[in-house]
Amino acid sequence: MNEQATHNKKVALVIGAGDATGGAIAKRFAQGGYITCMTRRNAEKLSPLIEEIESENGQAYGFASDARKEDQVIELIEKIESTIGPIEVMVFNIGANVPCSILEETAQKYFKIWEMACFGGFLVGREVAKRMVPRQKGTIIFTGATAGLRGSANFAAFSGAKHGLRALAQSMARELGSKNIHVAHVVIDGAIDTTFIKETFPETYALKDQDGILNPTHIAENYWYLTQQPRDAWTHELDLRPYMERW
Amino acid sequence: MNEQATHNKKVALVIGAGDATGGAIAKRFAQGGYITCMTRRNAEKLSPLIEEIESENGQAYGFASDARKEDQVIELIEKIESTIGPIEVMVFNIGANVPCSILEETAQKYFKIWEMACFGGFLVGREVAKRMVPRQKGTIIFTGATAGLRGSANFAAFSGAKHGLRALAQSMARELGSKNIHVAHVVIDGAIDTTFIKETFPETYALKDQDGILNPTHIAENYWYLTQQPRDAWTHELDLRPYMERW
Amino acid sequence: MNEQATHNKKVALVIGAGDATGGAIAKRFAQGGYITCMTRRNAEKLSPLIEEIESENGQAYGFASDARKEDQVIELIEKIESTIGPIEVMVFNIGANVPCSILEETAQKYFKIWEMACFGGFLVGREVAKRMVPRQKGTIIFTGATAGLRGSANFAAFSGAKHGLRALAQSMARELGSKNIHVAHVVIDGAIDTTFIKETFPETYALKDQDGILNPTHIAENYWYLTQQPRDAWTHELDLRPYMERW
Amino acid sequence: MNEQATHNKKVALVIGAGDATGGAIAKRFAQGGYITCMTRRNAEKLSPLIEEIESENGQAYGFASDARKEDQVIELIEKIESTIGPIEVMVFNIGANVPCSILEETAQKYFKIWEMACFGGFLVGREVAKRMVPRQKGTIIFTGATAGLRGSANFAAFSGAKHGLRALAQSMARELGSKNIHVAHVVIDGAIDTTFIKETFPETYALKDQDGILNPTHIAENYWYLTQQPRDAWTHELDLRPYMERW
Repeated sequence: MNEQATHNKKVALVIGAGDATGGAIAKRFAQGGYITCMTRRNAEKLSPLIEEIESENGQAYGFASDARKEDQVIELIEKIESTIGPIEVMVFNIGANVPCSILEETAQKYFKIWEMACFGGFLVGREVAKRMVPRQKGTIIFTGATAGLRGSANFAAFSGAKHGLRALAQSMARELGSKNIHVAHVVIDGAIDTTFIKETFPETYALKDQDGILNPTHIAENYWYLTQQPRDAWTHELDLRPYMERW
Repeated sequence: MNEQATHNKKVALVIGAGDATGGAIAKRFAQGGYITCMTRRNAEKLSPLIEEIESENGQAYGFASDARKEDQVIELIEKIESTIGPIEVMVFNIGANVPCSILEETAQKYFKIWEMACFGGFLVGREVAKRMVPRQKGTIIFTGATAGLRGSANFAAFSGAKHGLRALAQSMARELGSKNIHVAHVVIDGAIDTTFIKETFPETYALKDQDGILNPTHIAENYWYLTQQPRDAWTHELDLRPYMERW
Repeated sequence: MNEQATHNKKVALVIGAGDATGGAIAKRFAQGGYITCMTRRNAEKLSPLIEEIESENGQAYGFASDARKEDQVIELIEKIESTIGPIEVMVFNIGANVPCSILEETAQKYFKIWEMACFGGFLVGREVAKRMVPRQKGTIIFTGATAGLRGSANFAAFSGAKHGLRALAQSMARELGSKNIHVAHVVIDGAIDTTFIKETFPETYALKDQDGILNPTHIAENYWYLTQQPRDAWTHELDLRPYMERW
Repeated sequence: MNEQATHNKKVALVIGAGDATGGAIAKRFAQGGYITCMTRRNAEKLSPLIEEIESENGQAYGFASDARKEDQVIELIEKIESTIGPIEVMVFNIGANVPCSILEETAQKYFKIWEMACFGGFLVGREVAKRMVPRQKGTIIFTGATAGLRGSANFAAFSGAKHGLRALAQSMARELGSKNIHVAHVVIDGAIDTTFIKETFPETYALKDQDGILNPTHIAENYWYLTQQPRDAWTHELDLRPYMERW
């Protein structure tokens, strides 16, 4: 296999490739020449994204894989590595906030939010790190939130999960940096242009006209940028927020 | 029942009353006039502590209760509140670090460390908050660690759990402060005088002669102090470390 | 000189002993048996405080000393050490916020706020540290603010000064801890019961009835407490805020 | 003047364009089409840099201007704005660490380090903000350091100055963001490939072969990148460190 072919086989894996951020990240890496692998709980929903990438001559594969399940994660990574190519970039992009008073928060929800946003990150992060470390090459990016830095009222579950994810990112960065694995944590601080925001917070969504909510394509560009940094000047953490966001 | 009698029935609950910190905290609150309730996975091990407290004319009760199990936590709080007295102070003091490379960390251990140090804190914190809020009175203290502020190499599990616990403490403090519930987070930064440190890190333990490791009784005094602060000047977070600790 | 006499000669120095926090701290240390030395730009204003302390059988001395002037600071410390007694506690309590848009902030004011709240802390901190280190004994406490942790809009000058002061406290703590000098930083987060708040923010002051502003006497108790911590469990930073404060 | 010509007249101003980082930043902005204005205490030393930029068909101007002197800063900004073009980007890149025990630190040095690294940032930041705000356009970037986040032993002066600078950046970002001015703070965490490091810390410099010290050109690319972010997704703070740096 020649150099070019090898080059073309590098894989970017996006865990949680939803319609907004995750999907935009997947497209960006496809445009950058990566074979893009994507997961979503319902893999069928990935079809339009795969078609879009393929229509631009990119390569994309979709997987139904639950990041909370160790066996599924192990199987996913093994399948990609053995049949598609070496994972050079992994983006973990799962997590949802459902604010609630501590007095009303259920154990089930508290657990589930952690399981999705933090435990899944651990499972996928560990599995791809196992592959990257022997190759001494790779970038791992976790999507964080302001809640990862501050525990606001009614955010016990989400901020707990995002704090845990940030701790994971830091711990991995400190252990794996010298092994040439770049681990980064992106703090999204603001509403993103998603269907969820449009339907749930129409007043916030209306700020879109003034660039007051984050454009997923612009978020994705930052993820791409992180993977392009030479190793003498890596960023571990950066924040992204609209110019008009209060913080 | 007269005022004084009611006053005497106030309860301090220590979750995780081990031989060192938790036990010392329990003794301190017993000395301060609280009926002290304590939990430990093996309740029999609480007997010497209960005897010691009773020998000093304190009142103490031990419970075998697993803080990770919602039904057990609910039952514990209900039992104490209905048969012993109103919980005015709750100290959550569970958590253990078992450092490990991210490459070797098991899902089981990562989960278990979180379940003990963070999820248990959520369950007990929520249940006592439910009781304290209607009474508009109470103090909840979580035992944290430096790992709650920084994700060091090989600490992914422990720092993830302690970050989550710190987020919980902050979130609860921000929600419950105005309801007159004092929520605090104590950052222990250093080795404590425990059998574990003595046997596992004898060189560190040797610093005891120079006051280089934390005395559990001194830690306990700070927990007591936090409960004595007037509500116009509450501390949410304080750190405790030996004078000679590097940080 | 006997033990007791020596003991009685220990000095607590309060830099910036105004009518509220600084004055309350001075009184607390006088009650605790320290000879209390106090500074204020206008020393005459210290007379009522000195009289109050003396009426309670305490010992107090007032000095007009500008903490921003190196020669005055050197002279002050020399005078106290040579004529009154060894300084065992120093509290630096100067600093005032005058919010302003960055576009309007004057160089003079930006400088002055730093000179008072940070540079003065450096000068006094250094001078007392020089005395304490050879004796291997002493506590140095800096009064900080939320602005020391966060740079809010219109707070460039004050948050710059308070950030610098916090950096000073951390740097001194890390260097001097192992020399048995306890350096601490207290983060006051909320309005204090002062004439200034009463006259300038009457709505905030009205919260006093609900304990919604900090009582200087209660603040002072925390400073005292810090000096009482055994050296195996020192606190470097603690925050103080009213239970109902939003943060 | 037509649109294109106006566009070509946009100015990037680099305060502190030394041989390493500042110079590299100046070159990067010149390559990106900005007229690059640079300051250095000794303007003659800017000649090689100006020649290099001009040899690549860029436009560059050097100024001897002391950022600590308000009148010089005002004059500099006025001169550039009136004779060269509107300042669209300002990079503040001054600051030097000279570690010292707090016991030995002189008032003169403590002041000077602050004056250079923080006060100068305030003066230049304010003056360019005054120009940018009415135009609702501009980017202001401050070069920070790890010392801006943590006060290490023997770093009282430098960490005080860098903490103050970080507070300035945050305060300006929070005030000016909604006015469409992008204010960012870059945390450099590691040794940079400079003559100073080469001569003073040869062991550290030797890590250059393994990409263990920061390449100024790579640092510069990040500054450029920050100016290219769409305003719905601005970064306020990012860190840069070599992959093998311990942190």
